[in-house]
Amino acid sequence: MIKAYAAFEPGGELKSFEYDPGPLGDHDVEIEVDYCGICHSDLSMLNNEWGITQYPFVPGHEVAGRISAVGKHVNKFSIGDRVGLGWHSSYCNECNTCMEGDHNLCRDAQGTIVGRHGGFADKVRAQAASVVKLPDTLSSESAGPLFCGGITVFNPIVQFDLKPTARVGVIGIGGLGHMAVQFLNKWGCEVTAFTSSEAKRTEALELGAHRTLDSRDKDALKASAGYFDLIISTVNVELDWGGYISTLRPKGRLHLVGAVLEPMKISVMALMGGQRSVSSSPVGSPAVIAQMLEFAARHRIEPKVEVFPMADVNAAIDRLENGSPRYRVVLKR
Amino acid sequence: MIKAYAAFEPGGELKSFEYDPGPLGDHDVEIEVDYCGICHSDLSMLNNEWGITQYPFVPGHEVAGRISAVGKHVNKFSIGDRVGLGWHSSYCNECNTCMEGDHNLCRDAQGTIVGRHGGFADKVRAQAASVVKLPDTLSSESAGPLFCGGITVFNPIVQFDLKPTARVGVIGIGGLGHMAVQFLNKWGCEVTAFTSSEAKRTEALELGAHRTLDSRDKDALKASAGYFDLIISTVNVELDWGGYISTLRPKGRLHLVGAVLEPMKISVMALMGGQRSVSSSPVGSPAVIAQMLEFAARHRIEPKVEVFPMADVNAAIDRLENGSPRYRVVLKR
Repeated sequence: MIKAYAAFEPGGELKSFEYDPGPLGDHDVEIEVDYCGICHSDLSMLNNEWGITQYPFVPGHEVAGRISAVGKHVNKFSIGDRVGLGWHSSYCNECNTCMEGDHNLCRDAQGTIVGRHGGFADKVRAQAASVVKLPDTLSSESAGPLFCGGITVFNPIVQFDLKPTARVGVIGIGGLGHMAVQFLNKWGCEVTAFTSSEAKRTEALELGAHRTLDSRDKDALKASAGYFDLIISTVNVELDWGGYISTLRPKGRLHLVGAVLEPMKISVMALMGGQRSVSSSPVGSPAVIAQMLEFAARHRIEPKVEVFPMADVNAAIDRLENGSPRYRVVLKR
Repeated sequence: MIKAYAAFEPGGELKSFEYDPGPLGDHDVEIEVDYCGICHSDLSMLNNEWGITQYPFVPGHEVAGRISAVGKHVNKFSIGDRVGLGWHSSYCNECNTCMEGDHNLCRDAQGTIVGRHGGFADKVRAQAASVVKLPDTLSSESAGPLFCGGITVFNPIVQFDLKPTARVGVIGIGGLGHMAVQFLNKWGCEVTAFTSSEAKRTEALELGAHRTLDSRDKDALKASAGYFDLIISTVNVELDWGGYISTLRPKGRLHLVGAVLEPMKISVMALMGGQRSVSSSPVGSPAVIAQMLEFAARHRIEPKVEVFPMADVNAAIDRLENGSPRYRVVLKR
């Protein structure tokens, strides 16, 4: 039996819950959970905002732990290996998209907490292909958030072949943005944090931003016209996209990783004059996750976390929902 | 004096008009016009749709002709050289964008018919940097339309490093689209023409499309879900962009080259799942125009044109505005 914390209705409090995971699949592994991050998408799922949640619902898709069992066709892991698990818990591994290495875009990829039970538990299972080994120098405490929040902002850097000569803006200095700033700084880029908060401004500079821009300051935005090669938006609300697009250089890109539900209104003419692009992407493939972990370990990049005992999961969720954690909330089992 | 055809008010009939171009600039050339294409943007400018037209207005920015005079700092052309001139008649040649070879994205690039007189004339002048020599095997009759319509659809192929293995869709089989189909076929791609007209369907297949898709057929669109690496839209009206985005493969791109004035409504989630992009671009740089001309000459790609004597310019404009020319209207001096 796996001991977990589950909600039994939309927005419900998490309570102890046990379930029998059945026999371990031939290509699966079981992970003993040491830490598990809480992501905004855990809350969206908890509240059934996307209409796909099944109850009892066990959140948790930023797992750091140790392999406790391996299926009979799994060769790449041994018992005790330190590993992590993110948004996806399996891929079809057969389609062209998987065969090209883009497992995160596989149409049949399964979400760790979509129709199955996640990492707010003593153990969690997943297909071995979706699990990635942790570098020795990366702490389990801060590794979890890299597997969803981290890869979501690291992936576009890789996908669009970002050059270290690029000027990059980051919208939203929170769970995702504070990792983006660190990655981009070590990637060699010039990093601008968009923020209107004086406290966040100071923190962004400490994290590695070279400058900050108050996005409510129309004159400051105007002075940055044609400036950025890339802007990564980590927020999930509608913004003045046109204003941000005007700050892009020729061939610049506005890339959204936040799940904005309102349609964007985009002026074709604003894109045309500067050959600009608007795009979005979800998390990243296991191969890119592995690259990210190695890069993070080499440069000592770690998400900043607030740790709660897993038994205090409801307080931790409240902290994420109603507080302003700096920057990622993590449960310790 | 240069003998031209000009409109004297928005939408006005073109009448004979003479102007004194003054002394030839040191970096400029004068072209004796042999042929000049008529582009939809000539009509938009004629009607002052973009609010930037100055009258008397001499349209014409798809010029094929011969060098008749060179400024004293111009070394790359000699009298009699067969050349073409497109949308841009000069660049600053100093900014980073120009220095990187992206002259068509230069903020100070000047339009051939914006605040100056174009190619519906016996002569036209332009900065030598904006003029490109014609390959020997390319006819002057059909070269003109390559300089605006042609480069507009060829440029994205180059900009986005399109692979010959790609599947590409073309929206709008008209002046631009019929050139896109020819380029893409010779580039090695699988080419699909989106069209709902049976006549255009047959023509598109003759031009080199491998298949056609009726975009009004919801079932056909559904059957093509996740199919295209790239869709180039050449139309200037609002379409069901979401429907087209759904036909893009993972990492696919919807690229607009038509001047759509209504804002696009784009679902972030539709882009996110497949890491898709939406973008736009204007014409192309002289360097890419030169590549295009060489490619077109090698593969005997020529726009299909209907030729009118320049004296019948008003009939030619009427043909473009109210007929369905196959596919580009060209004036012969």
